[in-house]
Amino acid sequence: MSELSVKHLLGIKYLNEKDIQLIFETADHFKEVINRAIKKVPSLRDITIANIFFENSTRTRLSFELAEKRLSADVINFSAAQSSVKKGETLIDTVNNILSMKVDMVVMRHPNPGAGIFLAKHVNASIVNAGDGAHEHPTQALLDSYSIREKLGDVAGKNVVIVGDILHSRVALSNIFALQLQGANVKVCGPRTLLPKHVESLGVGVETDLVKALNWCDVANMLRIQNERMDISYFPTTREYTQQFGINKNLLESLEKEIVIMHPGPINRGVEITSDVADSGQSIILDQVENGVAIRMAVIYLLASKIK
Amino acid sequence: MSELSVKHLLGIKYLNEKDIQLIFETADHFKEVINRAIKKVPSLRDITIANIFFENSTRTRLSFELAEKRLSADVINFSAAQSSVKKGETLIDTVNNILSMKVDMVVMRHPNPGAGIFLAKHVNASIVNAGDGAHEHPTQALLDSYSIREKLGDVAGKNVVIVGDILHSRVALSNIFALQLQGANVKVCGPRTLLPKHVESLGVGVETDLVKALNWCDVANMLRIQNERMDISYFPTTREYTQQFGINKNLLESLEKEIVIMHPGPINRGVEITSDVADSGQSIILDQVENGVAIRMAVIYLLASKIK
Amino acid sequence: MSELSVKHLLGIKYLNEKDIQLIFETADHFKEVINRAIKKVPSLRDITIANIFFENSTRTRLSFELAEKRLSADVINFSAAQSSVKKGETLIDTVNNILSMKVDMVVMRHPNPGAGIFLAKHVNASIVNAGDGAHEHPTQALLDSYSIREKLGDVAGKNVVIVGDILHSRVALSNIFALQLQGANVKVCGPRTLLPKHVESLGVGVETDLVKALNWCDVANMLRIQNERMDISYFPTTREYTQQFGINKNLLESLEKEIVIMHPGPINRGVEITSDVADSGQSIILDQVENGVAIRMAVIYLLASKIK
Repeated sequence: MSELSVKHLLGIKYLNEKDIQLIFETADHFKEVINRAIKKVPSLRDITIANIFFENSTRTRLSFELAEKRLSADVINFSAAQSSVKKGETLIDTVNNILSMKVDMVVMRHPNPGAGIFLAKHVNASIVNAGDGAHEHPTQALLDSYSIREKLGDVAGKNVVIVGDILHSRVALSNIFALQLQGANVKVCGPRTLLPKHVESLGVGVETDLVKALNWCDVANMLRIQNERMDISYFPTTREYTQQFGINKNLLESLEKEIVIMHPGPINRGVEITSDVADSGQSIILDQVENGVAIRMAVIYLLASKIK
Repeated sequence: MSELSVKHLLGIKYLNEKDIQLIFETADHFKEVINRAIKKVPSLRDITIANIFFENSTRTRLSFELAEKRLSADVINFSAAQSSVKKGETLIDTVNNILSMKVDMVVMRHPNPGAGIFLAKHVNASIVNAGDGAHEHPTQALLDSYSIREKLGDVAGKNVVIVGDILHSRVALSNIFALQLQGANVKVCGPRTLLPKHVESLGVGVETDLVKALNWCDVANMLRIQNERMDISYFPTTREYTQQFGINKNLLESLEKEIVIMHPGPINRGVEITSDVADSGQSIILDQVENGVAIRMAVIYLLASKIK
Repeated sequence: MSELSVKHLLGIKYLNEKDIQLIFETADHFKEVINRAIKKVPSLRDITIANIFFENSTRTRLSFELAEKRLSADVINFSAAQSSVKKGETLIDTVNNILSMKVDMVVMRHPNPGAGIFLAKHVNASIVNAGDGAHEHPTQALLDSYSIREKLGDVAGKNVVIVGDILHSRVALSNIFALQLQGANVKVCGPRTLLPKHVESLGVGVETDLVKALNWCDVANMLRIQNERMDISYFPTTREYTQQFGINKNLLESLEKEIVIMHPGPINRGVEITSDVADSGQSIILDQVENGVAIRMAVIYLLASKIK
């Protein structure tokens, strides 16, 4: 059987197209598993995984934890809120301590971009990046592409627009890399104040008119707007954002073709999408969540096979 | 084998007398299990349960978690303190997300009365209410009745007085429903300010004189007084409450017969009951805790058999 | 097979020399286990253990939790932050409640010295002290001695200096008892303000000159300095402490012989030891962490054999 070209999953940037295909085929298998009565496989009975979260994230942590348990791995959870980190310990010391307890793999979320990359150079374990600041969130991008492939048969050649705060979004950056690697056409759409200055250099199209963007695309990935950020210092305000970049049912039905609606969650209903859009037949938002467990099982399984 | 008349356990109000008997007989079996060396059964190896607690509750959460693990279910814990709820996500979105990860049953505590009932209408999973505001706490009432049955042989015909803050207590309301369903005679006792206005409409007797109430009853269920509530705006103060509605050893021994003392915990020793009463041979407080695990195993087991 | 002389592990003070040898030999066995592919043994499938932490401690809690899971015990975690303790419940009530759920063993960290000893007298379960205020931290001392034995072949006859805030340190006190029991020579070293008044009555030497202490010893156990304590009211300040009692590479290499460096963690790099010392070949800091899991498996296994 083939294997990944990498020892860690630090970002989509470090994967090649074959890696993604291998992850998707492995996820196909695990998706069957989690739809059986007994949702577990004994594959990783000899692996101990530490989930180290320096930022709160119920949804991503639960998804990883379920993926690990369904692979029969031993799991320990470590959240920064209760940790020695507060006592001034360095990241490397914290992780080396956990690894000394015979941990084989670390799933880490950290507020600093590149935290996982830094760690991978200094510790002897397989690292899975579960989100590093505004940098990457690779398993989210993988599950997003996997959900497009499931819905539309293929990612290659599809037109995908990512709508929202591209500037601060690790979900956007990982999605751009993943979609490009698979041959999709990618545009970003949002207010200029929330787009990176040189976003075109990423090889994506830019569209500030939402209707034009939606009429172009097959899939719209509607990023979550972080209200706390919008209300303080940014233009536009949340209300202005919704008027210009939110999707409601009228807009959706006025489009020239039927598009697929995605959202990484948690949804601000009535801000980036209205409830009737989120719950419509064109939305695959809950499929994304379901596929998240299968994708994470696949990633962990494939990385584990390299450390045995 | 017979089965429950309900798909969820939202409140005692929705159960019939046969349901309660079935739960008790099933709990009898599980009580044997948890007193064996190996306290587990493999019954629910194919069920995943999410414990979703929007209010802190160590005691109830631990009891549910142990019940689930002893049934060999897969368990994930979700507490609101670290959750997307803070980011403005709706309850239905939060729960649908968790269910999309292939969760079969939700045990939920929520500060709002009726939260479980609302949820049961909108999501596709079995819901167990672990306390919804001042409304119901059905597993507590079931374990209370089960403990009376264990101690006195039967609930029917027994005189039970519930003492304390009836107005704000979900334990009181669920107990009233459960005891009436089984044919017990129920009185409530407490200061008028802590009784609901139309409490007689629930079909219970009202007694504001504790000595009279105790001389009438076979069982006294002493509710916990919430000091934080008492000290601020309510009459009586804690000290006044203890003088009029607290039980001490002298009072207990002055009664015409030997009554059974219950308390849902956590105890304020010296407020609603003194230590010598809590630790006396007439107290079945720790039996209640032990029976809680068996009752919760029974409820989860019976509901799971309806979703397979 | 022989067994421990005690039913609880409340402190090193209550152990004899044979107990320590038995724990070490058992840990040797478990150290082999955790270095195998499958790191588990089914030994304690019939035991339920509650980890009750009234103080935050990621490192110690994770180590105990891994030890328990690798013995196949059922584990429940209870942290005071979310507990009924806040509602005014007594320690005995809290623990008795947990025990009523059929828990066999309690691992407890508590801010009050003697909390475990008090508990052991009043509840019917085996108690493991995971740190009680400034009193004892017996598993830390056991893993420290075990690591010295592993590195130097034996503890007896070795010269060990404990450097730092001896006054407030449960690690220091447990280490003194453990090292003396095994026939090591012990000195303490630190500023007079951080030594107990009658420290000589413990039978240890006192040395306030770090260079002299290091030239005397085979092993230096460098305690963690608690910055928050140092900066407020104590002499010396952190900077003064580092100048007089910190070890850097120059100092280490200027010594007459090669000594072993230990630290209980978490390290303040640059305060009590510099990074090049912490990461040098003379440091056994990560071995201590690894041995912690084996030692805790041994302690729990040996105590469990007495309750079956």
